[in-house]
Parts: sequence; structure tokens; C-alpha cells
Amino acid sequence: METLDILMDMAVIILFAKFFALLARKLHAPQVAGEIIAGIIIGPTLLNLVQTTDFLNEMAELGVILLMFSAGLETDLRELKKSGLKATLIACAGVFLPLILGTLLYMCFYGFDVAGSPEFIKALFIGTILTATSVSITVQVLKELGKISTELGMTIMSAAIIDDVIGILVLTAVIGMKDPSSSILLVAGKTVLFFVLAFFAGIVLYQVMKRIDERYPHTRRIPIISIAIAFIMSYVADRYFGVADITGAFLAGVILSSLKDSEYIERRVDINSYTFFGPVFFASIGLQTNLRTLDSTILLFSLAFVVVGLLSKIAGCGGMGRILGYKGKDALRIGVGMMTRGEVALIVTQRGLKAGIIGSEYFTAVILLIVISSLLTPLLLKALFTEKTA
Amino acid sequence: METLDILMDMAVIILFAKFFALLARKLHAPQVAGEIIAGIIIGPTLLNLVQTTDFLNEMAELGVILLMFSAGLETDLRELKKSGLKATLIACAGVFLPLILGTLLYMCFYGFDVAGSPEFIKALFIGTILTATSVSITVQVLKELGKISTELGMTIMSAAIIDDVIGILVLTAVIGMKDPSSSILLVAGKTVLFFVLAFFAGIVLYQVMKRIDERYPHTRRIPIISIAIAFIMSYVADRYFGVADITGAFLAGVILSSLKDSEYIERRVDINSYTFFGPVFFASIGLQTNLRTLDSTILLFSLAFVVVGLLSKIAGCGGMGRILGYKGKDALRIGVGMMTRGEVALIVTQRGLKAGIIGSEYFTAVILLIVISSLLTPLLLKALFTEKTA
Repeated sequence: METLDILMDMAVIILFAKFFALLARKLHAPQVAGEIIAGIIIGPTLLNLVQTTDFLNEMAELGVILLMFSAGLETDLRELKKSGLKATLIACAGVFLPLILGTLLYMCFYGFDVAGSPEFIKALFIGTILTATSVSITVQVLKELGKISTELGMTIMSAAIIDDVIGILVLTAVIGMKDPSSSILLVAGKTVLFFVLAFFAGIVLYQVMKRIDERYPHTRRIPIISIAIAFIMSYVADRYFGVADITGAFLAGVILSSLKDSEYIERRVDINSYTFFGPVFFASIGLQTNLRTLDSTILLFSLAFVVVGLLSKIAGCGGMGRILGYKGKDALRIGVGMMTRGEVALIVTQRGLKAGIIGSEYFTAVILLIVISSLLTPLLLKALFTEKTA
Repeated sequence: METLDILMDMAVIILFAKFFALLARKLHAPQVAGEIIAGIIIGPTLLNLVQTTDFLNEMAELGVILLMFSAGLETDLRELKKSGLKATLIACAGVFLPLILGTLLYMCFYGFDVAGSPEFIKALFIGTILTATSVSITVQVLKELGKISTELGMTIMSAAIIDDVIGILVLTAVIGMKDPSSSILLVAGKTVLFFVLAFFAGIVLYQVMKRIDERYPHTRRIPIISIAIAFIMSYVADRYFGVADITGAFLAGVILSSLKDSEYIERRVDINSYTFFGPVFFASIGLQTNLRTLDSTILLFSLAFVVVGLLSKIAGCGGMGRILGYKGKDALRIGVGMMTRGEVALIVTQRGLKAGIIGSEYFTAVILLIVISSLLTPLLLKALFTEKTA
């Protein structure tokens, strides 16, 4: 009776994940880090209580899709338009510098290779992991400091969101390159076609959902239809256009983010996420990480990865801020505000693992980056904002 | 990439289930019926859009456990104690008459067999399906009629709850009998042992949860720990005591039903249920039902099953009501109030299918009973209550 076993697996996962998430919060670390550590503890590294199964992988898959859909729903399109060019430039610099430096870092460790080779794509992928800032952690810190509605706060927030979008585009391109049979041109063509079609489908879907939402506000059908749209867009993106499924889910979220009930949808999605799908996703990352197999090269690489990850964002975003006319300290604030990494970095890593581009040993580096950046950012931002008001 | 397919399966299931649930509500039928019909439509009977997969079965399994946990949470122990003996007697009569008549019905159709034989257990199982009244439908109708707080209403409600508990006990006994290697005595012994241990574990768990709840009311950890308890009790019941897992989930619900936050827990469980697990469970019943393979015997049996199901409850509960001193019309009201069937009847059927006692063709009979009883009860109760106030 193997269906019975999933009950025990789920019970162990949600209990440990919750316990370590709470512990993490107590230590001012992100809860996500706690859930991953829970996975490491119940996984092959330590207790070996739960093994990865098809069922857990599929639950984790739904979890990722729901997380990215929720991230898309949080996007405020009007805000994005307002802060416009400045934020976009900061975001671009904050994507491309880490992308290039991350790629170079891998090459320094494991050797340079010709463009297009598997090793080159792997290097590029390591860079890709470094691109996405974690919006949620940045927002939380700015809120706590009461700086969220300042011009600087708004710019950081918008840049963090745009940064996600560009990061997803980079991911889509890199994953697309992986298939050796496809030419870069074909990949680019299919990707562009997907975004064009998604744009028009988005207009139609938004209008339809807006009408349904106006007629039946706050009813269960709103989140249910929305989730179905997210699932279908993920499926279509991956199956027919070779675009990462999480891109489809994120876009579905962006499309529905202007609905009156977008918060209502997000709340329902989140309740589903936090109870089962989220903990299973983050714990399953821990389950797939076997720290016993780590060697010293990976450890050294992980440390370098963290340093490059943090400094490249500070230099990229802060440097662009300086170019755009922000004063030294404000530019530094922007850079530090943008250096946190979170769920999206993990999701990108997991996608690379699934696509066979990188191995699971890189989870260690990413987890380290998330934990360290999430702990450092609040401390540094606090220091930078309170020391002397600029 | 089969994990991708689950996205499409889930999208189709939640969309169709929601659409037909809404349609059912418009036609004053229970929404559950709509979700089952959605499953029949997307399943092998008609469109063949979705096939049952391991993943869907496992999601459905979690769905059943959550449903029964939620049903347990709704149990009001204090109310039960108050209405006490009267309701218990009505419930007993309402369990045993349908059980006996259902068993006889199967024997009339398919022949009598010696006690303990597979055919005998199958007959007994058909009777078992008829035992559980659907609390939710009864409650909803009484609420709409404004009769929920009358003495009669309270008695019906309490009887419906006790009836669930006795029904679960009967199910546990019948499923236990199925294993040919186990003696009835051993089964009974293990079952009694489980309930005794669950009683003591329940006291401890309740005290622990009460303390956690008082310290951290309305926090996410409350529903998460509660759900983990439900999963673990289900697992332990089935694996170590041969007791149906849903019994464990129901008991976990009963244990936690007196918590201050029991409604908060129920609400979180329900949001998880209604979005994914519930629709998957009910639709998967439709997916397992292939109406194309129905023969005339099953159809005839199904009709007889519905008639016996309705009349045996009216006679059992109404008759006992009459014995306890209720006037003719009040006794009839009790009988009609107790004749609705719902989720629990389906869950019992599904358990029988899983244990290899009955075939999936009996879903038709059960679905018919649920739909007809849920449509008839409101109409008859309305007529009985408004015609002349007794």
C-alpha cells in the first residue's frame, strides 16, 4: 500500500519544514532557508526519513508553478510604468553584471570552453542563477525601515521586479540553447512568438477574467479559474514553445495582477502553497542535496559564488545608480537593496537540474547565497539608512 | 516530460469540476454531484481528456483524508453529549436497518452466501455504504428552513453525527473482515486497541495542541500541525491496526474539534480541499466510472439500491423516533431529515474498491443515491415543515 506512505511523508515534511521555518524566523533568516534545511535534515544527508518519490516531485512541480504565479500576481504594472526607465536601467545592469561575472567565475574554476558547448552553457547557467533579486525580502526590509514609499524605495522595488522579468527571459534563452538540435535562431524565434502570443492571449484572458470578477467578486471560482490559467500557460509554454514552464506561470500572474481580486487570488494561492506545495518544494531541494558527497572544490566554489553574487549586484545596480545621478550613499543603498536572493534563484537552479544542465551539488552554493544575502541585507540596509540621513 | 502533463490534468479537472459544481448548485443539486459528473465527462465514458494516474490517485487519497478530517472537526462533542441517548438510539436504528436491508438487497440480486465468504462480505459492504447520513446536506436544509435550533433540529443533527461515527465503526469492522488470514477476534481486538490508544493519545494531543493554540492563536502552525496529526493518525490506523485510514483522520478531527481554533483549522483545510484535493477526489470517482460498461443488472440494482437506501433510513430513524415518543409527522421529519447521503457514502465506496471488496460499477448506484436523496430531502422537508406547523 504505497499510497499510505505518502501520508507519513507529507506529515514529516510539513512538520519539519514548519519547525525549521519558525526557527529561521527567530534567527532573522528567511523561512525558506529553514524549509530547505528541514529537507536536508530529513533527507539522505542526515536522518533519511523521507526519500524523493515521483509523487513528491510532482507536488514540488505544482509548488514551483504556484510560487511563480504568486510572484507574477504581486507585480504592479502601473508602478512599473511610473518608475520606468531609471529602474529598468538599474535592473539591466543588475542582471548582466552578475550574469557575466557568474559565467566567468565558473570558467575560472572549471576551464573556458567554446560558446555553445555544454560546459559553456553550464557556465552561463551559473551566471543566470545570480540574476534574480528576491523581491519579497527586499520589500520586507524596506517596509520595516519605513522607506518603502520614498523615491529610492520605489526605484529599488521596481528594479527588483523588472530584474525578475529579465532574469526569466535570460533563463528562457539559456534553457532554450541547451537542446543541441535547435539553432539559437529557432529558439529565439519560438520564444519571441510565445511572448507575442502570450501578450494577445493575455489581453483576451484579462478582459474575460475582469468580467467574471466584476460579476462574481470574491467567489471561489476566481482563484480556481486563475490557477487553471496559470497551469495551462505553463504547459503550453513548455510543450509547444520550449519556454520554461515557470515563465508561463509568472506571465499568467502578471496578466491577472491588475484584476480587482488579484490579492484575493494571491491569498488563496498562498494558503495552498504554504500548507503543502511550498514546503514540499523547498524541502525537496534539501532532499535532493546530499551534503555527504560534497568535495572541497564545490565548497570553495560555493564561497566564491556567494562573494561574486553579492558584489556583482552591488557594483551593477549601485554603479548604474551612480551613473543615473544618485549620490554615493544612495547608490550603495540601491546596490545593497538589490543583492538579496530568494525563491527565484532556487527555482532557476532546480530548472537547470531538471533540464540536465547542472548537477544537484550547486544547490549548496545557491542555498549559501540565499542564507547569507538574506541575513546581510537587513543588517547593511539598516546601517546605511540610520547612520546619517542623506 | 510527464511531470508537465500533470499541469494540464489539474487544469482540466479543476475547471470542469468547478463548472459542473456551479451548474449543480443552480439546479439545487449538491455541488459534489457536479464534480463527479465532471469526472464522468472528462473520463473514459465521454471525452477521455484525463486518465487516472498514480499522481491523481495520490492527490485523491490526500483529498479523502482532508475531507474526513474536516468532517471530524465539525463534530461538536458538547452538543453530542447533550442530545445524548435519544439521538444515539435514532442513529443506531438509522445505521442498522439500512445495513441489514442493503445486505439483503445484494443477496436478493446476486445470491445468498455463507457468512465470512467474499460474496457475503461484499453484500455486507453494500449495506455499509448505506449507513452514513450526510451531515452537511441535512444541516444546510435545516438552516434554510430556520429549524436548526429547535429540539427536533438538534436531535436530527446529533443523530446525523453519531450516525457517521457508527458508520465508520461498521466500515472498520467490515474492512477488517476482508483479510482472510485474520480472525474476526483478532480484527476486533486490534480495532478496540486502536480506539483505546487513540483515546489516550487524543487526550495528550488535545492538551498539547490546546497549549500551542493558546500561545499562538490564528497562526499558520496550528493548521499545519493539525493536518500532520491527521496524516499520522491515518497512517498509524491503517498500517499498524488494520483500521481504515479515514477513521484515523476522522478521529483526529474529533480530537481537535474542541480547540478554540478548530474553525480556523477547518477553514484552512477547506481552502486546500476545495482548490485541489477535493475536486481531484470527486472527479477521480467519475474518472473511475465508465458508464459504457454498465449492464442492465447493475442499472436495475442501482435503482433498487436507491429505493432501499431512502426507505430504510426513513423507517429506521422515523420508526425509532416514533418509539421514543415523537408524533407521526415529527417522526417522519426525522426520517426524511436523515435520508440524505453524501461524501461519506462515496468515501466508503472508494475504500471498498481500494480494498478489493467491490467493483467500480457500484459507484453508479451510490452516485444515483446521493443525487436523488439530496434533491428529494429539501423538497420533502420543506413540504413537511410548512404544510401545517405541528
